[in-house]
Amino acid sequence: MNNFNFYSPTYFVFGKERENEAGKYIKRFNGTRVLIHYGSGSVIKSGLLQRVKKSLTENGIYFTELGGVVPNPRSGLVYTGIELCKKDKIDFILAVGGGSVIDSAKAIALGAEYDGDFWDFYCGKRIEKALPVATILTLTAAGSEGSMGTVITHENGMLKRAANHDVLRPVFSILNPELTCSLPAYQTACGAIDMMAHVMERYFTNTQNVEITDRLAEGILLTIIKEAPIALANPSNYEARANLMWAGMVAHNDTCGVGRDSDWSSHQMEHELSGLYDVAHGAGLAVMFPAWMKYVMNHDIMRFAQFAVRVWGCEMNFQQPEETALQGIQRYEEFAKSLGMPIRFAELGAKAEDIPFMVKTLGLGENTMGSFVKLTEEDVKKIYELAV
Amino acid sequence: MNNFNFYSPTYFVFGKERENEAGKYIKRFNGTRVLIHYGSGSVIKSGLLQRVKKSLTENGIYFTELGGVVPNPRSGLVYTGIELCKKDKIDFILAVGGGSVIDSAKAIALGAEYDGDFWDFYCGKRIEKALPVATILTLTAAGSEGSMGTVITHENGMLKRAANHDVLRPVFSILNPELTCSLPAYQTACGAIDMMAHVMERYFTNTQNVEITDRLAEGILLTIIKEAPIALANPSNYEARANLMWAGMVAHNDTCGVGRDSDWSSHQMEHELSGLYDVAHGAGLAVMFPAWMKYVMNHDIMRFAQFAVRVWGCEMNFQQPEETALQGIQRYEEFAKSLGMPIRFAELGAKAEDIPFMVKTLGLGENTMGSFVKLTEEDVKKIYELAV
Repeated sequence: MNNFNFYSPTYFVFGKERENEAGKYIKRFNGTRVLIHYGSGSVIKSGLLQRVKKSLTENGIYFTELGGVVPNPRSGLVYTGIELCKKDKIDFILAVGGGSVIDSAKAIALGAEYDGDFWDFYCGKRIEKALPVATILTLTAAGSEGSMGTVITHENGMLKRAANHDVLRPVFSILNPELTCSLPAYQTACGAIDMMAHVMERYFTNTQNVEITDRLAEGILLTIIKEAPIALANPSNYEARANLMWAGMVAHNDTCGVGRDSDWSSHQMEHELSGLYDVAHGAGLAVMFPAWMKYVMNHDIMRFAQFAVRVWGCEMNFQQPEETALQGIQRYEEFAKSLGMPIRFAELGAKAEDIPFMVKTLGLGENTMGSFVKLTEEDVKKIYELAV
Repeated sequence: MNNFNFYSPTYFVFGKERENEAGKYIKRFNGTRVLIHYGSGSVIKSGLLQRVKKSLTENGIYFTELGGVVPNPRSGLVYTGIELCKKDKIDFILAVGGGSVIDSAKAIALGAEYDGDFWDFYCGKRIEKALPVATILTLTAAGSEGSMGTVITHENGMLKRAANHDVLRPVFSILNPELTCSLPAYQTACGAIDMMAHVMERYFTNTQNVEITDRLAEGILLTIIKEAPIALANPSNYEARANLMWAGMVAHNDTCGVGRDSDWSSHQMEHELSGLYDVAHGAGLAVMFPAWMKYVMNHDIMRFAQFAVRVWGCEMNFQQPEETALQGIQRYEEFAKSLGMPIRFAELGAKAEDIPFMVKTLGLGENTMGSFVKLTEEDVKKIYELAV
């Protein structure tokens, strides 16, 4: 096990109707002038925004608002939000939505406390401070409600890049599974795949003797495999939504990732896909992850066999462990398909002829990426080709 | 799943030699006048205390010290510590030791910010504030390094009572598995049993549809079952110690307990045992837990069958699930015995004739305790008798 620091100070407020406590918690965490940040009109139509505003008003909290966040959130709205915060002396940002809204809020929080261009932090500049961000989650997927990360797409070149720091962990997050009951099947499935990917990026590691995080990771995956089909078959099943919602948080606040190297190659390759085609992140991951797994499997057959046996319930083939390893990957693909997810380029609308462009914008050059297997540009090209 | 709040803001600093960073983190968390609290001379003999003091000195931090905490920590030293804190204007407490030292430190932290008797908080008085506590853990067991709890034995009547509040979560905890490599086998085994008990008190619940926390709980148990025998066979095996150390934290910071009712009857019954005979908490739990399980098993055979199959790898007996359930309990007993733990009164030095006294001091009267099955005084008596 590697040395590590783990810090997950977010106060989680989980359950039915908890969004009505938003004002109380903003007060507790010293917010006085709040920017409410959200996406499309769905939070207006559902009445959620109204309930949240009521809670803030009842607690005497000043607020202004900024909607319009799109999936794969863009830099343009972030710049607007930063300006708004500076002009209106905002000291607290409340994100009401899914991962895109939260990521956009985190970007605004960074920029509001910085004189330069917020994009600097997505290009490697060291993060030091940000406005406090809280969330009311409406979509189980990104894990941004508990994570230290944010991913933004810059409109200049459609570059999708991440920034990470402890100050980006939300001060509180309200998770009401009821709010996810109205999600369309496609978004529910994308969310499940995204959550699984967060676990799997950590699961495939070269760090030895990490039984505790292996077991926690497997537990999260087993939960998603059980609960996602229930939520698809019966969208208003509260219990399935609740299990998925908490699984999505622990999948990405690093509970199952501490003390071990993690990979993130599949995520990086997916970012090029969703940056170029504007497809859902989860759908892109359902395509990229099996391709990556097939390509790197031989690097550690027994880890893939463990994945197959413990997560997918495959019988261990003691004579030919590689058969078991491959079976695990196939089970993953079958599961993704059963959720209605694409698993190949064509189903996603991606084109083989764009592979050289994606390899280029990924920008590896002479460097490598990933940790489980260090991938060169040539490797990346072959993995994209496996996904065709 | 129940509504819940989850707040685990402790900054965890995990790995080899991390205790040398104690001063840095105390500074980060605004400590200026520190009470170093510890137990017997082992932290002196090992040189740990010296290294910690060096780190504080290098960071210009004032400190004073108070040793002498005993297992099942007593009120007497807590009163001494509180007086010391008030006299010396202490603003930060650093516990160097295991659960007993940390629990004693938390009690001092409560009393130092209170004009009355600290014991009030162990008799149900509402907690509002406490001095910040940090820990350097030397014994994997109690989970107090990440938990909101503290257990103290009052010398007036040897009453063992708990207090719980979010302000009692350590601000940071340094977990260096190397520090546990010198632990005697008996303490290592007691720690493993204690950690398992923290998970099992949460696992046996009437709350339905809690797959995510079920799976996380099972993952922690599977880890302990694998790693504890390795640590016993080879005490200096760093990797086993590391897995156990992190398992002990997640076992009790409520990662696997949120959203579900938990029980704690076995803990309460054990407190009477260790209060009366001054036996190790883990040893007492190894005796009380199987007795409790046998007594309540019929309340939910399928939950015990799940425990047997998923945690102990038993084959499910689909015709007679109660056989599987019973097998799980037997496996637990065999495992405890294999670690050198007692599983009956006699091995512990406890006496059947003291049962009426323990039932009485437990003080249920006409009330019940527990959640999975609500136990009356008569039930408690029968469970103690099953443990004879």
